[in-house]
Amino acid sequence: MARNTQVAADHNAPAITQILAEYVANHPSKGWSDAVDHEAHRTFMNWLGCAVGASNHESAHAALAAVKLLAPGAQASVLGRRDKVDMCSAALINGITSHTFDFDDTHLKTIIHPAGPVASALLAMAEHTGATGRELIDALVIGIDVSCRVGNAMYPDHYDRGWHITGSTGTLGAAAGCARLLKLNTQQTAMALGIAASQPVGMREQFGTMTKPLHPGAAARAGLMAALLAQQGFTASPKALEAPRGMMQTVSTKNDWREITDELGQRFEISFNTYKPFACGIVIHPSIDACSQLRAKGITPDQVAKIELRVHSLVLELTGKKEPADGLQAKFSVYHGCAAGLTFGQAGEDEFADEIVTRDDMVALRRKVLAVVDDSIDEASADVTATLTDGRVVHVFVKHAIGSLENPMSDAQLEGKFHTMCDRVLGAAQTQTLIEACWAVGKAPNVSAIMSAAHN
Amino acid sequence: MARNTQVAADHNAPAITQILAEYVANHPSKGWSDAVDHEAHRTFMNWLGCAVGASNHESAHAALAAVKLLAPGAQASVLGRRDKVDMCSAALINGITSHTFDFDDTHLKTIIHPAGPVASALLAMAEHTGATGRELIDALVIGIDVSCRVGNAMYPDHYDRGWHITGSTGTLGAAAGCARLLKLNTQQTAMALGIAASQPVGMREQFGTMTKPLHPGAAARAGLMAALLAQQGFTASPKALEAPRGMMQTVSTKNDWREITDELGQRFEISFNTYKPFACGIVIHPSIDACSQLRAKGITPDQVAKIELRVHSLVLELTGKKEPADGLQAKFSVYHGCAAGLTFGQAGEDEFADEIVTRDDMVALRRKVLAVVDDSIDEASADVTATLTDGRVVHVFVKHAIGSLENPMSDAQLEGKFHTMCDRVLGAAQTQTLIEACWAVGKAPNVSAIMSAAHN
Repeated sequence: MARNTQVAADHNAPAITQILAEYVANHPSKGWSDAVDHEAHRTFMNWLGCAVGASNHESAHAALAAVKLLAPGAQASVLGRRDKVDMCSAALINGITSHTFDFDDTHLKTIIHPAGPVASALLAMAEHTGATGRELIDALVIGIDVSCRVGNAMYPDHYDRGWHITGSTGTLGAAAGCARLLKLNTQQTAMALGIAASQPVGMREQFGTMTKPLHPGAAARAGLMAALLAQQGFTASPKALEAPRGMMQTVSTKNDWREITDELGQRFEISFNTYKPFACGIVIHPSIDACSQLRAKGITPDQVAKIELRVHSLVLELTGKKEPADGLQAKFSVYHGCAAGLTFGQAGEDEFADEIVTRDDMVALRRKVLAVVDDSIDEASADVTATLTDGRVVHVFVKHAIGSLENPMSDAQLEGKFHTMCDRVLGAAQTQTLIEACWAVGKAPNVSAIMSAAHN
Repeated sequence: MARNTQVAADHNAPAITQILAEYVANHPSKGWSDAVDHEAHRTFMNWLGCAVGASNHESAHAALAAVKLLAPGAQASVLGRRDKVDMCSAALINGITSHTFDFDDTHLKTIIHPAGPVASALLAMAEHTGATGRELIDALVIGIDVSCRVGNAMYPDHYDRGWHITGSTGTLGAAAGCARLLKLNTQQTAMALGIAASQPVGMREQFGTMTKPLHPGAAARAGLMAALLAQQGFTASPKALEAPRGMMQTVSTKNDWREITDELGQRFEISFNTYKPFACGIVIHPSIDACSQLRAKGITPDQVAKIELRVHSLVLELTGKKEPADGLQAKFSVYHGCAAGLTFGQAGEDEFADEIVTRDDMVALRRKVLAVVDDSIDEASADVTATLTDGRVVHVFVKHAIGSLENPMSDAQLEGKFHTMCDRVLGAAQTQTLIEACWAVGKAPNVSAIMSAAHN
């Protein structure tokens, strides 16, 4: 019948659920620096652009078709489209689209994509409840802080075990953010976190399928619902996160509780958020950046006889596909990354389109790239030497690629990225209106300016 | 950046997702014995009675209030109530109520409560789509087979680690059942299982809170939605269950794949389902049964001078509360169980009500019970010797309590249990109508006879 368990347990964890609930419910509005607040706006804008940009992807169509089978109420908008669905379903679909291009934000310490679950839940709720932009940004900073701190505590064991950490911690972040937006008290917030703790989402095996972006969507949905349930009096364990058979010990054998409690309310994990300039795995970014710099020096593809690329062995191990046959394969080709950087000076979704990848000039340029393994070069760096047909030799070394924490994308670059994703959906003028609404959201009386610009 | 994982993985698993999908999609209708089919009806009826019985519990009120904030479409019924909500929300709420009393079915080998996630999803979907009763029962047998087989493969490691196995395997069972009900093909069914595989639900730390019964509800909801998504073309990994970073290896270090593949389509796990006659932990059941047998022999409480109860040490370890103060505490009191058995001949929710537990005669009778540890008696047995005031001594030994696999509740006893749960909600006459509709469901053209009898 019963049996003593053989699984190790830490019975001395601090009261994590309660500590986080007190923080979520009671931290002052904009209780952080202007720099943190600005980073929250950058995070929000980048997330929104990703969601609008992928709004016509086949995964969005499939998810919306399934949701419509439920005859949802018209409460909140599907970004990039004219459809309105209930809050939870909007959170689901916007969470899916925001991660479909794998172009959203990254908290590098944990490789969590934090905005997807949290912002998707918050914007849907804010639209329906009429929350102010200030309340939205407050909840975004706090929700992301919760998911990333829990991620810090469990990483890397939790990820190595197979969890897609974006979804598994995302339910907590979304619940925390929504609890804040609903102005739940400390006790109710603890219940919301507890309800969410039973619903971690996402396995890494799903990478490469639509279920990968489902993870932040399902986490957003579950987190929003957890907050609504708590508001209506539903209960959970007040130790649901930290108890021996609570969430964290169940899904991770490493739990460094201090990652959650240290400097809580003083250090904000959203400060460490980064944004990808290129729509592919981070390991190719330094090479693309280097070749874009060649282009910026006035070098054109037809001038190039040979490009010698020196990179760490890991780069070729993960992205060494020499002759990619289509856009998906090209995302695993550092050769295509170099060709795109030199030809276009950028590498967004457009530059990974099948018709670009198979173009004759791109095929020819890729073949001029000679990759050389050099483990003295850091994984985050790239060393490029172009030999031109006129005999000139041009060298570029990228220590930290654009988009890294050390060399972040500027606000203008984020706007440029936003345009590459949204212009085709909204047109350039409306996209610019939406960008301006994003920068202003923290001062807006509600999110209606954003919602009216965010669909075609 | 990247890092080779240290977590062990089995790279040679059979194609579990595909094997289960082929079974779910293609196994013949009623491709099993009459005995299996009858057990499916017993499972369905017991599940329905639990859900109706708890439909006025505060957890049902809270969940329904939260769902109503989403302005749900009126597609499917909340059992025991007049409310209609969308299919997914009905699956959620009926899943919650069916497990609220902890009185639902048990697959003893895994301690999964299999009907909660599966039947809750199926009935909601069947009501909306107009599926036949035959299709419903087919999907119930197959869905429960999937969740229990996955449970067999992972148990006990998965449970010991902290997972509430009812919810974690239940999403898969619900997805399988709903895929069958929607007549998805093999490929679509594999996708439904794959989507579900990213959404295991439930931590054991939640036991004693409303989030425990949320687990089968959330699993039902996620499984139903997974099937809808797959129907609309949403994709997942075709190896989502068995891959090294798929669900099963992520949530369990023990995975005996043969538990899934052996005798698939020949042995049906629903055959091993059991039903609790008493609304408390299984460890008290033999003692209640023994004292009920004393009552059946004509012995009344006032005749009793002393009851000597000999049980395994585990019984007192888990349920040794001598003086319970209320109904909840009484569920952990073998003394109260004995008093209820002798006084009422049963121990449903009514016999665990606060006002019964605190009644003077019950307090007095509990004090006459002397429990003696005897580890030569099996955990599943109880030895009771009553000494009467007139000097007579009456002895009852229960080897396998009523409700065990060896001594199952009869159909008449299941009906009696159903009445104890539902009469107060529906009245006795309508409850009887509902019972008859349950027995006839496999031959019914749709589920409307059930739905019209299942609310007040």
